[in-house]
Amino acid sequence: MDPKKISHPAIVELDGAYWFQEKSEESFPGQRFCLEVDEILHHSHSEFQDILIFKSKTFGNVLVLNGIIQCTEKDEFAYQELITHTAIMSHEKPSNVLVIGGGDCGVVRELVKHLDRGVDTITMVEIDDMVIKLLAQYLPHMAKFHDHPRVNIVIDDGFKFLRENKSKFDVIITDSSDPEGPAEEFFRTSYFELLSNALSPNGVVIMQSSENVWLNIDKLKELVSLSRHVFENVKYCQCYMPSYTSGQLGLIVATHNTSLNLTQPLRTFAADEEKKLFQYYSASVHQAAFVLPRWAADINEVDT
Amino acid sequence: MDPKKISHPAIVELDGAYWFQEKSEESFPGQRFCLEVDEILHHSHSEFQDILIFKSKTFGNVLVLNGIIQCTEKDEFAYQELITHTAIMSHEKPSNVLVIGGGDCGVVRELVKHLDRGVDTITMVEIDDMVIKLLAQYLPHMAKFHDHPRVNIVIDDGFKFLRENKSKFDVIITDSSDPEGPAEEFFRTSYFELLSNALSPNGVVIMQSSENVWLNIDKLKELVSLSRHVFENVKYCQCYMPSYTSGQLGLIVATHNTSLNLTQPLRTFAADEEKKLFQYYSASVHQAAFVLPRWAADINEVDT
Repeated sequence: MDPKKISHPAIVELDGAYWFQEKSEESFPGQRFCLEVDEILHHSHSEFQDILIFKSKTFGNVLVLNGIIQCTEKDEFAYQELITHTAIMSHEKPSNVLVIGGGDCGVVRELVKHLDRGVDTITMVEIDDMVIKLLAQYLPHMAKFHDHPRVNIVIDDGFKFLRENKSKFDVIITDSSDPEGPAEEFFRTSYFELLSNALSPNGVVIMQSSENVWLNIDKLKELVSLSRHVFENVKYCQCYMPSYTSGQLGLIVATHNTSLNLTQPLRTFAADEEKKLFQYYSASVHQAAFVLPRWAADINEVDT
Repeated sequence: MDPKKISHPAIVELDGAYWFQEKSEESFPGQRFCLEVDEILHHSHSEFQDILIFKSKTFGNVLVLNGIIQCTEKDEFAYQELITHTAIMSHEKPSNVLVIGGGDCGVVRELVKHLDRGVDTITMVEIDDMVIKLLAQYLPHMAKFHDHPRVNIVIDDGFKFLRENKSKFDVIITDSSDPEGPAEEFFRTSYFELLSNALSPNGVVIMQSSENVWLNIDKLKELVSLSRHVFENVKYCQCYMPSYTSGQLGLIVATHNTSLNLTQPLRTFAADEEKKLFQYYSASVHQAAFVLPRWAADINEVDT
């Protein structure tokens, strides 16, 4: 390891090795998660954010935006699968799917599994072209379908796209980074209203919440409550994986369709097909993801 | 904060503050979890292990044995409740309960909730008296029943106790520390056989696995397999909480009773009583804890 190659404000030397430290005084004071760094593969400031990609000792290559881990090769599939398939399998016929954000192309990779199995068109709107290019280079398994002929990638601001958009989508997946940085607007009512306008009548939206039940439950409840001002049927589920803060990250699923039980998949695959298609998701994982610890369970215990 | 008070090999100064680093080259190389330290409350080597207790900035007081976080005031209830109630609610009449280890007295606190609701006697066998005394002083909410009149605390080696023991128990909870240190023997077949001998015919045992599906799944599968050499019915469940490595910790539940479905509680409380009794556990959490990600699900998909 060449120490000259290791220079980044979040990387420190400890016990003779280099460690990336994930820290945020605002979002998770008093706790840090650290990954040992073998080599910095890329560091730049794009027009929109600070982008760091490093080779870790035990988590494969890691993408960090504005100091926060977005994905590691070891465990990225957990989040990518849960956010994608929970929404897709909750819709009877998710013909047209829109992804807002998702520049790592992990959601797109998962969506391709559903082409001609319910999904007909995939559109992804990512603001930062640089993220897509870098992922294709450094986390190629995630971004393997960044140039898939049936995936329409639009480089644009998600807000602008939704405002100008005339099409309706059956599923919209918001795969944004955290509210600090360019994604701040994705955590407001005005965004939920744009989503609502772009949705077909029985459409389903899913978004990462940037929270979990342990971090800041009041903020999480506020976000769920904001969603309920716009959507009649809102549920919250969690993904459990080591590289996210507290080992878990929450997702908000919402629809205007009040007869839909979002906590159970509407469609399922046969067991052997499920094994072939998924590493993290299954019909059982779908249901279990909505089961919250007793003290937080009231988030989902509402009349919808 | 007086820096003179902050001196321990696992505590380093970073960005002008003091941080405890949980690290293990053997068990989880390349990753560390850090908690900001306000004050070291206690540090000593007992006859059996290195004991550190510190006041953290955001996780309350923290107990560390041999460098590994055992419990924090913020989230200890999750593990204590899951290991206790999963076993107790899987038994029709868990009259006599034995805890091996459990010196923090968290399991005992949870067991007291079941006195005269199924449980009649509680025996705890802890090797290290010092842990009990320190917890009563520094994490008093956990250890609040260390002197409960109906809890029989025996200071002894768990192995010796089981070898010499003539009583039978309906539920045995092994709440040990990790295999490095005095708890190494708890992860071997000879221990499972001692448990089996001390169990009443339909008895249930539960033990922490020191693993989760992300850390070292081969080692985890080996441990489950060892358990299956002794017990006919074995299942594996996970607890999700921020202060354990990867944000999750696995538990192995086992019984000779092949007609028992361990993944569902045999007994349940009414919803309002469940709310009063538990912060983490519920009948739904019990079931969801056994649902593993698709790639790890074969641990529980066996004919028993």
